[in-house]
Amino acid sequence: MKAWKLTPGGGIEGLILLDLPEPVAGPGEVLIRVRSTSLNYRDLLMTRRNRHPIIPLSDGAGDVVAVGSGVAAFAPGDRVTSCFFKSWTDGEGTPEDTSESFGGNRLDGMLAELVALPESAVIHMPPHMNYDEAATLPCAALTAWNAMYVQARLTPGQSVLLLGTGGVSIAGLQLAAIGGVRSIITSSSDAKLERARALGADHTINYHEREDWERAALDATGGRGVDAVLEVGGAATYPKSMAATRFGGMVTLIGALAHEGGDPGTAPMLGRGLKAARIFVGSRRQFQDMNRALTLRKVHPVVDRAFSMDEAAEAFRCLESQAHFGKIVIRV
Amino acid sequence: MKAWKLTPGGGIEGLILLDLPEPVAGPGEVLIRVRSTSLNYRDLLMTRRNRHPIIPLSDGAGDVVAVGSGVAAFAPGDRVTSCFFKSWTDGEGTPEDTSESFGGNRLDGMLAELVALPESAVIHMPPHMNYDEAATLPCAALTAWNAMYVQARLTPGQSVLLLGTGGVSIAGLQLAAIGGVRSIITSSSDAKLERARALGADHTINYHEREDWERAALDATGGRGVDAVLEVGGAATYPKSMAATRFGGMVTLIGALAHEGGDPGTAPMLGRGLKAARIFVGSRRQFQDMNRALTLRKVHPVVDRAFSMDEAAEAFRCLESQAHFGKIVIRV
Amino acid sequence: MKAWKLTPGGGIEGLILLDLPEPVAGPGEVLIRVRSTSLNYRDLLMTRRNRHPIIPLSDGAGDVVAVGSGVAAFAPGDRVTSCFFKSWTDGEGTPEDTSESFGGNRLDGMLAELVALPESAVIHMPPHMNYDEAATLPCAALTAWNAMYVQARLTPGQSVLLLGTGGVSIAGLQLAAIGGVRSIITSSSDAKLERARALGADHTINYHEREDWERAALDATGGRGVDAVLEVGGAATYPKSMAATRFGGMVTLIGALAHEGGDPGTAPMLGRGLKAARIFVGSRRQFQDMNRALTLRKVHPVVDRAFSMDEAAEAFRCLESQAHFGKIVIRV
Amino acid sequence: MKAWKLTPGGGIEGLILLDLPEPVAGPGEVLIRVRSTSLNYRDLLMTRRNRHPIIPLSDGAGDVVAVGSGVAAFAPGDRVTSCFFKSWTDGEGTPEDTSESFGGNRLDGMLAELVALPESAVIHMPPHMNYDEAATLPCAALTAWNAMYVQARLTPGQSVLLLGTGGVSIAGLQLAAIGGVRSIITSSSDAKLERARALGADHTINYHEREDWERAALDATGGRGVDAVLEVGGAATYPKSMAATRFGGMVTLIGALAHEGGDPGTAPMLGRGLKAARIFVGSRRQFQDMNRALTLRKVHPVVDRAFSMDEAAEAFRCLESQAHFGKIVIRV
Repeated sequence: MKAWKLTPGGGIEGLILLDLPEPVAGPGEVLIRVRSTSLNYRDLLMTRRNRHPIIPLSDGAGDVVAVGSGVAAFAPGDRVTSCFFKSWTDGEGTPEDTSESFGGNRLDGMLAELVALPESAVIHMPPHMNYDEAATLPCAALTAWNAMYVQARLTPGQSVLLLGTGGVSIAGLQLAAIGGVRSIITSSSDAKLERARALGADHTINYHEREDWERAALDATGGRGVDAVLEVGGAATYPKSMAATRFGGMVTLIGALAHEGGDPGTAPMLGRGLKAARIFVGSRRQFQDMNRALTLRKVHPVVDRAFSMDEAAEAFRCLESQAHFGKIVIRV
Repeated sequence: MKAWKLTPGGGIEGLILLDLPEPVAGPGEVLIRVRSTSLNYRDLLMTRRNRHPIIPLSDGAGDVVAVGSGVAAFAPGDRVTSCFFKSWTDGEGTPEDTSESFGGNRLDGMLAELVALPESAVIHMPPHMNYDEAATLPCAALTAWNAMYVQARLTPGQSVLLLGTGGVSIAGLQLAAIGGVRSIITSSSDAKLERARALGADHTINYHEREDWERAALDATGGRGVDAVLEVGGAATYPKSMAATRFGGMVTLIGALAHEGGDPGTAPMLGRGLKAARIFVGSRRQFQDMNRALTLRKVHPVVDRAFSMDEAAEAFRCLESQAHFGKIVIRV
Repeated sequence: MKAWKLTPGGGIEGLILLDLPEPVAGPGEVLIRVRSTSLNYRDLLMTRRNRHPIIPLSDGAGDVVAVGSGVAAFAPGDRVTSCFFKSWTDGEGTPEDTSESFGGNRLDGMLAELVALPESAVIHMPPHMNYDEAATLPCAALTAWNAMYVQARLTPGQSVLLLGTGGVSIAGLQLAAIGGVRSIITSSSDAKLERARALGADHTINYHEREDWERAALDATGGRGVDAVLEVGGAATYPKSMAATRFGGMVTLIGALAHEGGDPGTAPMLGRGLKAARIFVGSRRQFQDMNRALTLRKVHPVVDRAFSMDEAAEAFRCLESQAHFGKIVIRV
Repeated sequence: MKAWKLTPGGGIEGLILLDLPEPVAGPGEVLIRVRSTSLNYRDLLMTRRNRHPIIPLSDGAGDVVAVGSGVAAFAPGDRVTSCFFKSWTDGEGTPEDTSESFGGNRLDGMLAELVALPESAVIHMPPHMNYDEAATLPCAALTAWNAMYVQARLTPGQSVLLLGTGGVSIAGLQLAAIGGVRSIITSSSDAKLERARALGADHTINYHEREDWERAALDATGGRGVDAVLEVGGAATYPKSMAATRFGGMVTLIGALAHEGGDPGTAPMLGRGLKAARIFVGSRRQFQDMNRALTLRKVHPVVDRAFSMDEAAEAFRCLESQAHFGKIVIRV
């Protein structure tokens, strides 16, 4: 089978397309023919930082082609996605639960024609989605779900601030729309903000026009402040995110990007009774809960651009350029 | 000013229209010109059971005409509604918080041209609503909100079972629609179920056609069971409500009606790990939270029929007939 | 190896001591030499009702003698206990999580010299306990923990009502003592109440002297009502338990006994804003959390009487007599 | 009556003892003869920073001498304490709830022979305490309670890290002891650590001997990390506090001191899935909950030293020296 592997320290140029032996489904494992995968910023970092020459990407969707002994929940023909973590099935999350994720460290990921995953890291995809759409869910969408509905426990009428139009923010926008949550989203592009409004954004802020976008976010909530921020921006945005948050609200700290380029500090949270919580994607149970919501309201995740298997490097470069809106996928 | 009073033990026939002295706004009070009121089943019971000859009805909306000393949050001209409880402003609720409600015991209610309420029992109405709509909120809608989003903490993709098309159920239906919650509603009338679908019901069950409506509710959730029931039916429905609930789900026990006509018992909840919680309307803070949601999504509560001040008795009889869909209001 | 088996429908008389082949540790399994087991009322019911001739008892403690392939968390020599459920490791609990428990249905239990359990159903025992003490934990103590600190979320200064001096109630008493929770316990025996006081009971009620023991419980909380009840008594006690609970408090419904002999109904919970929750023991994670608490405060569970392997039937009869205080164990 | 007033910007030297007219109990107010007050670091800051010449100190205990019209919950002779905030009675806390505290901004505090407080800012003191002990509760102890049992929701067997032996830390130590929570406390003085052990500290760390005290705290939890930190230290301790916290644990940010002298940043929380929450003392309801716990277990707060009314300046200087263990009080 064909699969891409990364070269430790090699960056995007170090990605190599190989012919590898086909994996088989061991006991408790599910063999999946991958149809589509999606990229996250973390995957870009892995091409630079991972110390083992593994198959990259945590996110994939495809068809079950075989199951190992003891597997009861899946059968050949099932349409499934991978989970981000190998063994975080339920509960609050422990260091063990979050120690192994696909496409990181020594654990091969999804950019291959066939993968064999433990049953506990496989989940049925929402029936109304195509493979590209389903491939966007395991990391970015689940991160937004966990931040909004598990950690911050947003209820209808509350508000969320979304920074930019990357995968997590656009997933958050769609999740806000179905949950009755007021969404406030920023971008430097009016065209992207126009697309965001079409997806249900309640307020859009062009941060080139409004350098004080935290003030604009406060205004959008009648001066009260947002109930939650999906903080994906790091040092450049964190203090403003806190300034936009209501008394007692929560800033969720997300992603590999967070706080690169200097540490913004905690001082701003002191004056406003804020909470902060670091988010690590989510559990398989949370993934099931999210899929139930996406299925009920027939949400179609936003695929910005789909690349072919041969164009994997171009896909990574597209992500690197940060010009996207939603998710970038590679079809296998 | 004109006001209706009930006669203890007199029932609907005991309602009397009187000319009473105009109330004034004492310290900390708000004087309201009532524009519309709404009826709840509890008000019907009060005409039979209340031992004091008070002005009935807990729910009203109108305009502030004067404020007493120390009132800062309201000014003449403000459009407001009453709260159900006189002093449950925030927190979990205590016997004291829930001891006094308008239109019950010795506390005059809203079926009058003018009422003076303590500031803590007044709340601004959602700007997009008319008085009739806003008058439906204090009891029925807040009960549904508390049950669904405070007690059962429903998140998008979860499900709620609604019994019949009375005020609480239709409010629950609208709140489910904006919160991404799967709604399953029962009625004996296909016409009402048609209206429910127009309001966003995800599943409708005619319980004349499906005596085993609890099975139909299970089917609507793929056999898993609903996450919450707004149980307003009493002895006739409670065991079926429990049978329709998922393992670990919650049956919320609502209303004056609940469990009249015999006690259904708790046995059914034992086999399925259920939770049950008695709901008493909600706090002022919850009311504000709900209004924020209704305002964001521009929800218009369902007014089945509006009566004039002179027709108060007809309005009560209309409620008694239980043929309504949503709420019955009396314009003052 | 020696093991007891029950005869379907045979009751205590149907228990048979057999010589069985020694089990081996399969992949992911832990082989345990059982040192001590404990009895729960559920086990007595199993001797009457279970339809398969299995080895009884859910609770056991002993030494690891071998581990199967892939087992990393245990090694020979480790002192361990069994979990009640075969696969409820974490999270809220699902029908699947709670479908299989040891010593029930087709799943052999702990009354054997050797047992092979899946790694996920084994847990290290608190180091300060002996085998008898540790054998009391998996069902009764974890049930009390789940009810008190997971479902009812008791905090210091809150109160719990404990009915009688069986295994759950005495475990609840000890857990209340270390958690700063006011404990109120009932019995018909002054001698047992004396023992309860020695274990830290804050209030004791002899229900032969006080038929209105629910009033005595109210008095013990200054009239406010208890925050939680561990309701193990069934139809005879449930209405009084509800009457003793504070506005907004929680009655936890526990055990095989609950509500045998007639259904008490739910009416009493309506007047007081109560919550009720059915408890099914608990998860492995909760077990670890509890053990951390028991270890910190060096709690020694109360073993009423220890029987030898040969006296298994006597042990069951002792349980049946309901004269015990705490737990009954059988040493293997 | 005698009362101290601060001079804006005057520091300790600016404190002046005055003869002032006696206050009276207006409508809804309670007139209290103050017997004892306690000092918090915030009060020291107020002597330097407050822009209005007010009576200082938030914390006081005394006897009710009169009540204004409409006051039902208090009567002359009642032994009471003040609340920190004038109007945070219940619920999550809002900017309004926390906008006015006694002894700050324009609101007179407790360092006076007589004070008139709104009923909602008065609470009965635990009966077993003397006035000095009760005067320590409103700010420091309630802060520890809120952080530990409301925000971090600690349960028995969990752990808390306490930094130094000031008022919040020693209150936290006593609250941990009654709640079955493992306490780990630091100091530079072996004598103070000895006293801490006598109060129930499970682990003590001399941070002069162990500069890597965060490692010592990790060791005390078997390498797992503490469940919560009461972070009162600021820039010098915050990174180490985060390093000592378990995956998913919570650092509570407390006090006027926090983060003076540089901002430690948030980077350390990213790697470990931490949560952080800013604590602002607590609500009146939380105060009642705490008092219930302190009363049940007959906890006597630690009064390090009691000064007379004339020695107010000495008391402030004693606090400034930071050599104390527990609380400093001034008897009125």
